[in-house]
Amino acid sequence: MEEQFNEIENNHDIPEQEDTEKIEILSPPMLIEVDEELIQEFSELIRLKSVSVLANLLYDLYPADIAHLINRLSSEEGEYLFNLLDAEIGGEVITMLDEAQRASLYEILGKHRLSSIINKLDSDDATDLVSEMPAQIAEQVLESLDKPTQSEVQELLQYEPTSAGGLMAKEFVAVFANDTVNRAIAAVRKASKTMKEIYNVFIVDETGKLVGDLRLKDILLHSPQKKVRNVMNRDVITANVFLDQEEVARLFKKYDLVILPIVAGDGTLVGTISHDDIVDVMEEEASEDMYKMAGSDAAEIEKKSPLEIAKMRLPFLLASMALSLCTGIVISMYNQTLSRLIILASFMPVISAISGNTGLQAAVIMVRGLSTGHIAVADWKKKWWQEMRAVWTMAIVCGVVLGLVAGIWSQHLMIGVVVGSSMFLSMSTAATMGTLIPVLSKKLGFDPAATAGPFETTFQDIIGVSIFLTLSTLLLRLV
Amino acid sequence: MEEQFNEIENNHDIPEQEDTEKIEILSPPMLIEVDEELIQEFSELIRLKSVSVLANLLYDLYPADIAHLINRLSSEEGEYLFNLLDAEIGGEVITMLDEAQRASLYEILGKHRLSSIINKLDSDDATDLVSEMPAQIAEQVLESLDKPTQSEVQELLQYEPTSAGGLMAKEFVAVFANDTVNRAIAAVRKASKTMKEIYNVFIVDETGKLVGDLRLKDILLHSPQKKVRNVMNRDVITANVFLDQEEVARLFKKYDLVILPIVAGDGTLVGTISHDDIVDVMEEEASEDMYKMAGSDAAEIEKKSPLEIAKMRLPFLLASMALSLCTGIVISMYNQTLSRLIILASFMPVISAISGNTGLQAAVIMVRGLSTGHIAVADWKKKWWQEMRAVWTMAIVCGVVLGLVAGIWSQHLMIGVVVGSSMFLSMSTAATMGTLIPVLSKKLGFDPAATAGPFETTFQDIIGVSIFLTLSTLLLRLV
Repeated sequence: MEEQFNEIENNHDIPEQEDTEKIEILSPPMLIEVDEELIQEFSELIRLKSVSVLANLLYDLYPADIAHLINRLSSEEGEYLFNLLDAEIGGEVITMLDEAQRASLYEILGKHRLSSIINKLDSDDATDLVSEMPAQIAEQVLESLDKPTQSEVQELLQYEPTSAGGLMAKEFVAVFANDTVNRAIAAVRKASKTMKEIYNVFIVDETGKLVGDLRLKDILLHSPQKKVRNVMNRDVITANVFLDQEEVARLFKKYDLVILPIVAGDGTLVGTISHDDIVDVMEEEASEDMYKMAGSDAAEIEKKSPLEIAKMRLPFLLASMALSLCTGIVISMYNQTLSRLIILASFMPVISAISGNTGLQAAVIMVRGLSTGHIAVADWKKKWWQEMRAVWTMAIVCGVVLGLVAGIWSQHLMIGVVVGSSMFLSMSTAATMGTLIPVLSKKLGFDPAATAGPFETTFQDIIGVSIFLTLSTLLLRLV
Repeated sequence: MEEQFNEIENNHDIPEQEDTEKIEILSPPMLIEVDEELIQEFSELIRLKSVSVLANLLYDLYPADIAHLINRLSSEEGEYLFNLLDAEIGGEVITMLDEAQRASLYEILGKHRLSSIINKLDSDDATDLVSEMPAQIAEQVLESLDKPTQSEVQELLQYEPTSAGGLMAKEFVAVFANDTVNRAIAAVRKASKTMKEIYNVFIVDETGKLVGDLRLKDILLHSPQKKVRNVMNRDVITANVFLDQEEVARLFKKYDLVILPIVAGDGTLVGTISHDDIVDVMEEEASEDMYKMAGSDAAEIEKKSPLEIAKMRLPFLLASMALSLCTGIVISMYNQTLSRLIILASFMPVISAISGNTGLQAAVIMVRGLSTGHIAVADWKKKWWQEMRAVWTMAIVCGVVLGLVAGIWSQHLMIGVVVGSSMFLSMSTAATMGTLIPVLSKKLGFDPAATAGPFETTFQDIIGVSIFLTLSTLLLRLV
């Protein structure tokens, strides 16, 4: 800040706002919070149809907050409010609405308003909206779009939504390697009119292949007459247009990227993915791991119909039921033992709960570690050994405590020994399975999150109960 | 790209590299993958001490890949390789190493090398390293740091690591509202020497209060003679230095931020948090939810000693054990029923597994929704009703299937009816509890992830088994 500044003579064909001389007190920016009170206030104003007051209030809100507000209002109130927005703000707001709210807007807005909104959006957001519209509306809207937007959306619709191509936007700033820095500046200025955020200028050769990039701060450093090829950064991280979004997210995380250029098979620059799209992907992937471990799917939150949700979860529950019936069969094989010592039935839930938990803890560490890349499949032995040492420590404590409880409760030393050692053994097998099943799944190409979780817990049940009842039967023979 | 470009006369005191005229073929950038083969190759070269070959190979790798490589090598090999890096690259690499690998580097590097590395880092990374060093080493290193770095690190060490202050860096570009755009450009140029990424120039008043910002692309649009106050953006999102990192992450996600200015209570600009720090926070928060639901903690992956892991998980397992012993007590109260109809014991695992799963599915949806902000506490009734309708559908299917299995297996119609209706009832209560416990926890200020999960599953066990055994006892009275 203290450095002598450099005079740069500016070209005057750029429109500038008036440099007013009035001395105005500047105040720090304030964020208006959308709380219950504000929601009530809007609701009331909508009822009174106070358009000008509403417009004024909306003007002070960020699009994300307007979206949040509309999501919290009734769908009629939300539609009324949305209709007060211009196409520009409307576009930003609509992408952030709940899917249900958006679905009802598609029905009422009409193709002209919808296409004028979509024309204002970046191509990736535009494509997302068009692809979720009912087929008939989508077709009409697509037809009424501006030609450039239309062709971009049509191109992007070709890609798998969870691939790099499905995430990318067609908007980027690019110049040729033989252009000057000044040309790059001109390109940024031109693109500024339609792009909200610009971080880099990408550099391509005559055939459109990406050969480098230039950050905006670097543009400010170099003489405008320099050729871009001599000042550009050549170590650009890129991703193929077909790369899966999970891998794309990993690149962002690993290399701290703010924007990632996407290339076709021949190296041609075809689009870019920006950091804010990746934040959503990461959240989605994390949620998906959790949902899968609970035997559901991330897609569930999107589905609104109970029947659809039931359809998604039922196969899992029925499979889980079949598996736990096996535990039932094991128990029925030991009916004699149980009948003679009915108190044993009281310890079965403890043994299956604790070994189930132990298995789940081990599995969560592995699933999450494999998914974030903190754990490599090749490291499984180290991880397993680390887990086992922790679990043996816990298994000794749990075994002794439960053994004491069982011994005192039954007033029978041997029952204490059997219960305690069953606890120890089933915790050890649980930890082993919890660590190895995710690794094995990953190796065989399955999703570790889908194979771990309750399936594993149920499987662990069978093992735990078998160990316990076998030991108990042996005990009865001895006594 | 096609626009006429504007001539900007550049000041010549900025050092420029030679504009070489040789025509060189530009090739698309290539990412070298760190695979087993490369790791073997490095391992062999380290054994042979081929310093120059290693240096050449390292030169082609990104810091993130060098870190990945060192993590996969033995700790001696890793140290050897790290010693070949200069302070600049070494600094980038060290922040990305596994904690264990870093801990051994602290021991061997010596305070001079360590402080020369830390001098090159951004203040947030520097602070993270100093705070994890053993106290004695940290003190020595802190003393040998350059004065500016030293005072920045000392300031940042004051903040809670999970607060905005603990995440922020002291490096940012700021000019006064009454400065010219040209002054802002000069500030960016000066800062470029030490800052890797610059996205914005922040604008402060005479007292240091943040009053606006200017994106780099906007700087390129305006005449350098303009006053910054007349062209700046005034709607800047800011966060207080004490805000929790989870809230900070939510701001990034909601407003698609790339950088967030952090202010003190009086509005003074004190630092900035950038998008890449937030990616780590988001991943951490998602993992934490998962770990907590499994009765562990995100801190676990950081801990290497099995004893530490056991200490962290044991209280949870023991509490869970106490809770499942209650299930055992319930069972023992119905010992008579069980002795008379021992086949009932075979259905207990199914009922507790399926109702446990149903509860977990409902809980995961709520925990994740509350945590990402997709579900508001105020919406709980809507969510509960939606969940119930899905669960009733599933409970009818599961109840009928299990009832048929039980009826056929036991050759007794009434047992089928009892088992089937117990399944239906325990699934319904499980879904209710799974939805309401996270909401209630959130309302009471507890972490929904910590109260849901296995505790809930175990609790559900007690209810499921009680329903089942009570119905069975009633049946026996009737028969």
